[in-house]
Amino acid sequence: METMVGLKRTHRCGELTLEDVGKKVTVMGWVQVYRNLGGVIFIDLRDRSGILQLVARIEDGEEVFQKADMVRSEYVLAALGEVVKRDEDTVNDKIKTGRIEVRMSELRILSKAETPPIYIEENSNVREEVRLKYRYLDLRRPDMQRLMELRHNVCKIARSYYDENGFLEIETPMLQKSTPEGARDYLVPSRVHPGSFYALPQSPQLYKQLLMLSGMDRYYQIVKCFRDEDLRADRQPEFTQIDLEMSFVNEDDVMSINEGMMKRLFKELKDIDLKTPFRRIPYQEAMDRFGSDKPDTRFGLELKDISDIVANSEFKVFTDVVKKGGSVRAINCKGGDAKFSRRDLDGLVDFVKTYRAKGLAWIVIGENELKSPITKFFSQEQIDGILSRMEAEVGDIIMIVADKNEIVYDALGALRLELAKRFDLIDKNSCDLLWVTDFPLFEYSEEEKRFVAKHHPFTMPKDEDIPLLDTDPAKVRAKAYDMVYNGTEVGGGSLRIFNTELQQKMFEKLGFTKEEAWERFGFLMGAFQYGTPPHGGMAYGLDRLVMLLAGRDSIRDVIAFPKVKDASELMSEAPGTVDEKQLAELHIKLDLPEEKN
Amino acid sequence: METMVGLKRTHRCGELTLEDVGKKVTVMGWVQVYRNLGGVIFIDLRDRSGILQLVARIEDGEEVFQKADMVRSEYVLAALGEVVKRDEDTVNDKIKTGRIEVRMSELRILSKAETPPIYIEENSNVREEVRLKYRYLDLRRPDMQRLMELRHNVCKIARSYYDENGFLEIETPMLQKSTPEGARDYLVPSRVHPGSFYALPQSPQLYKQLLMLSGMDRYYQIVKCFRDEDLRADRQPEFTQIDLEMSFVNEDDVMSINEGMMKRLFKELKDIDLKTPFRRIPYQEAMDRFGSDKPDTRFGLELKDISDIVANSEFKVFTDVVKKGGSVRAINCKGGDAKFSRRDLDGLVDFVKTYRAKGLAWIVIGENELKSPITKFFSQEQIDGILSRMEAEVGDIIMIVADKNEIVYDALGALRLELAKRFDLIDKNSCDLLWVTDFPLFEYSEEEKRFVAKHHPFTMPKDEDIPLLDTDPAKVRAKAYDMVYNGTEVGGGSLRIFNTELQQKMFEKLGFTKEEAWERFGFLMGAFQYGTPPHGGMAYGLDRLVMLLAGRDSIRDVIAFPKVKDASELMSEAPGTVDEKQLAELHIKLDLPEEKN
Repeated sequence: METMVGLKRTHRCGELTLEDVGKKVTVMGWVQVYRNLGGVIFIDLRDRSGILQLVARIEDGEEVFQKADMVRSEYVLAALGEVVKRDEDTVNDKIKTGRIEVRMSELRILSKAETPPIYIEENSNVREEVRLKYRYLDLRRPDMQRLMELRHNVCKIARSYYDENGFLEIETPMLQKSTPEGARDYLVPSRVHPGSFYALPQSPQLYKQLLMLSGMDRYYQIVKCFRDEDLRADRQPEFTQIDLEMSFVNEDDVMSINEGMMKRLFKELKDIDLKTPFRRIPYQEAMDRFGSDKPDTRFGLELKDISDIVANSEFKVFTDVVKKGGSVRAINCKGGDAKFSRRDLDGLVDFVKTYRAKGLAWIVIGENELKSPITKFFSQEQIDGILSRMEAEVGDIIMIVADKNEIVYDALGALRLELAKRFDLIDKNSCDLLWVTDFPLFEYSEEEKRFVAKHHPFTMPKDEDIPLLDTDPAKVRAKAYDMVYNGTEVGGGSLRIFNTELQQKMFEKLGFTKEEAWERFGFLMGAFQYGTPPHGGMAYGLDRLVMLLAGRDSIRDVIAFPKVKDASELMSEAPGTVDEKQLAELHIKLDLPEEKN
Repeated sequence: METMVGLKRTHRCGELTLEDVGKKVTVMGWVQVYRNLGGVIFIDLRDRSGILQLVARIEDGEEVFQKADMVRSEYVLAALGEVVKRDEDTVNDKIKTGRIEVRMSELRILSKAETPPIYIEENSNVREEVRLKYRYLDLRRPDMQRLMELRHNVCKIARSYYDENGFLEIETPMLQKSTPEGARDYLVPSRVHPGSFYALPQSPQLYKQLLMLSGMDRYYQIVKCFRDEDLRADRQPEFTQIDLEMSFVNEDDVMSINEGMMKRLFKELKDIDLKTPFRRIPYQEAMDRFGSDKPDTRFGLELKDISDIVANSEFKVFTDVVKKGGSVRAINCKGGDAKFSRRDLDGLVDFVKTYRAKGLAWIVIGENELKSPITKFFSQEQIDGILSRMEAEVGDIIMIVADKNEIVYDALGALRLELAKRFDLIDKNSCDLLWVTDFPLFEYSEEEKRFVAKHHPFTMPKDEDIPLLDTDPAKVRAKAYDMVYNGTEVGGGSLRIFNTELQQKMFEKLGFTKEEAWERFGFLMGAFQYGTPPHGGMAYGLDRLVMLLAGRDSIRDVIAFPKVKDASELMSEAPGTVDEKQLAELHIKLDLPEEKN
């Protein structure tokens, strides 16, 4: 192993061009490939900036040549030499430095390398578990390095933007009090206070509101948040939010600032001019038309409600559903007849069942007849009504789900996306940004037999809906908004309640006694008594935002050291066991589930 | 309570000037003071930008006047009106907006306020416990708001600087594996893996090194770190580091980049041109001259070693110390005779005892004679030797400590600072920035009876000292450096070991078996095998840096929501108790200390 003594890197590998011909340079990096062609050895040297060809010619000296002959893949080298123009027939226009090479006068092997378990190349096709176990090698791949650069740039642009708009970056605590409402907290036992625990933040919600009470006016932070939930594909136990809050604002102000932020991101990262303001779709309309509160509006296949038409039919499945307050809704799969066999349709029936629908009825509009297992239950008038509402034409297939509204939306919303995928209806290059607004304030939890907050318990109801809090809470709409990007929620927020009485009533509706509410959130409600500005804010899921901007499918690709489904990290094997002594100091002991025999 | 409907803030309070006279404006903020002078009411409205005078005149309309008469301190208002020039005799040149006022045409009371428990004014003299309990009110004070702005700006400048220099901001995990070495970890029980724990990071050390192995070249992050230690005045259980790492560098490269960073900070924040490069003082020299590895060199009072002179004296206390390998060192307290009574000197004896010194010997250089309890033990030659080495003149007092080196440095280092404080020797406006270099690699822990890493176990020894690892580890110097600002360490770092064998040897010297080392740090040592660039880095204590830049004495003043000595937060009362159910899910139970009866 050789030292760095006397060496100073003069250039990154990818920086050198024809303009540097004649310069004496010192470059450092990893060996991508090496070829010994007899009297000449070529080494492709790689660093974050790109790849550079080094040449050792035997006529330039034995020492460099012999050392060059020792290198292997992923060795770390420092090379000194002169930039020379390549022979015309060895020019490589695929890489930036393809017209030059460095003729080495000195070569040092700074670090040797075993053969790496994964090959370091663009988009290499290696099992994800192996990639994550050797993440430090996986991150050497140029595409992964560009993803990290993209993430860096997203943060940089966001910070500049919010700073220019008067937001102060203020850090909120990581060791907080556990206020169980929402997801499960990660807990941290306190050593100093036996029996007490901190919780890691699910979001900086309370603190950012307190910062508004403290007159900070505008706050932002790019901050780690934690949720101890079972992981889904796009979730991580620790994730990053771009979090912000503003005083003296209404919904338009918050949305407009954040449209500006997305405009800036798209302009600087993709040179795309987003049109602002974004479209706004009220929650109910989004559900009715797209079966989703994060609608992908890059294609049609909209849902239509046909409950009124079939309510009095002879098809008991439909009529029962309507009687019970559910609905019958349909999608017109344009031209589906030519694409879907009877067997494919059966497959779609199975597909909607995974969304809890009991079945999928269909009507194929044939040239001369309708093919369907259910038309026999309908009068001609009812059939005409359905066809007309669905704007059905020959070759279409009408796909119908009847159930509780919630299940109908879910199943048809998912079916709509599935059909778009199968028919390739989505223009990958289009950027579809919109707001979904007017969310319900509450949703009813069958599990807990109570209302829970749809957004969170600090969300302001619409002024005109406040009387409904006492009479019909399910109907109360919130001053809440989600930003949706190509059918994925990238951020959301709301205006906040800013007086004690309303906040107290909100907790009451959520089933807290006054004492419980004050026990958990007293410091916020107490704070409201000392002069509170109207305020509201928003948070982006940074991981998801970067993933979408990169056109990737997994947030793990845009997180340097992600965790996997069981919340472990494959590289360091975290979490791990700890010493008895550590637990004793924290006043806890293990309470392990019994071994299954 | 009134609403924001139809309102849009047009200006911040502090923004309006004579140039805005005639404009219709809408401003919002908190009531600082109000005065009803009969037919006219003045309200000082405060927001983050400053204070603005609102006027309600009875002749402009009853409604606004009556509403203005209802406001009290800290009410939140929205006021619409016209900017008018103040009468010459009511001009207030102490505030930016002192030449204008807003004559209100509409006033809305957005939020009422109880009388706040602390008065909202600059540098208000309130007990810190009360300030922290009502932190959201404390942060309304203009000086606290400026401190948050300063912190925002420090982060912003640091981010721009590192970005311009090719550093990528990359997030490292918060939920890590516990690797007990160094301070005590905060632990997070895993729900999914019964009996396993995550640890919150004490620093991103391992991950930032792995990012260098992954070819990221330069990394930075402003990141929360955690240490579960008993708090000292300038420590917090969660604190923030500006953390960075660079590949293919030597010590000069890291130091030079960071000198540039400090230069930028001082220029942009204080318009001060720092001279670079900073002075470098090797650790041993810093200890010998200043008794400290974070010397304050803004004043003299340097230590001198007089062991050689007194080694053969008749003063057994001194001779014994020297025989045992300790030393006798002294400070010349110039002109001390005029300032210190015999009683003051006794006080200083007590002072050095708090640093474990057994005593403080002194020699007062009187006009005609030396006053000292110890001169009788020395020959004239020895006395002359001491006076000459200390450059003593009439009126000086020589203060001497004899003990183990460690204690001598500690006691005299502290005494030196104490004397400077008492004699007011420090120019508060001077900015004294320097590096301390060449730290020892190890220090011996009496408690653990083994060597521990002075910096951390990944620090590279000096090339020329590597052979000493086997023969005399205590003598090995590290490629480590601390940045010292006015006698406080603001940052430190090192070059890192980058090969498996040396890293393994390092762990061996620290008393780990090979198995233990691989169990804990295997993923790093394994990674070294696949081609590792020479690398090194640094971390700043952000809280401390901002505190020093602000000229404050407490880091709690530059943290929005700090914790106190017992690691609790007074506002939210974190940590708190949690439900049994939460613990059961985490497979732990409490193991509380028995009640003392």
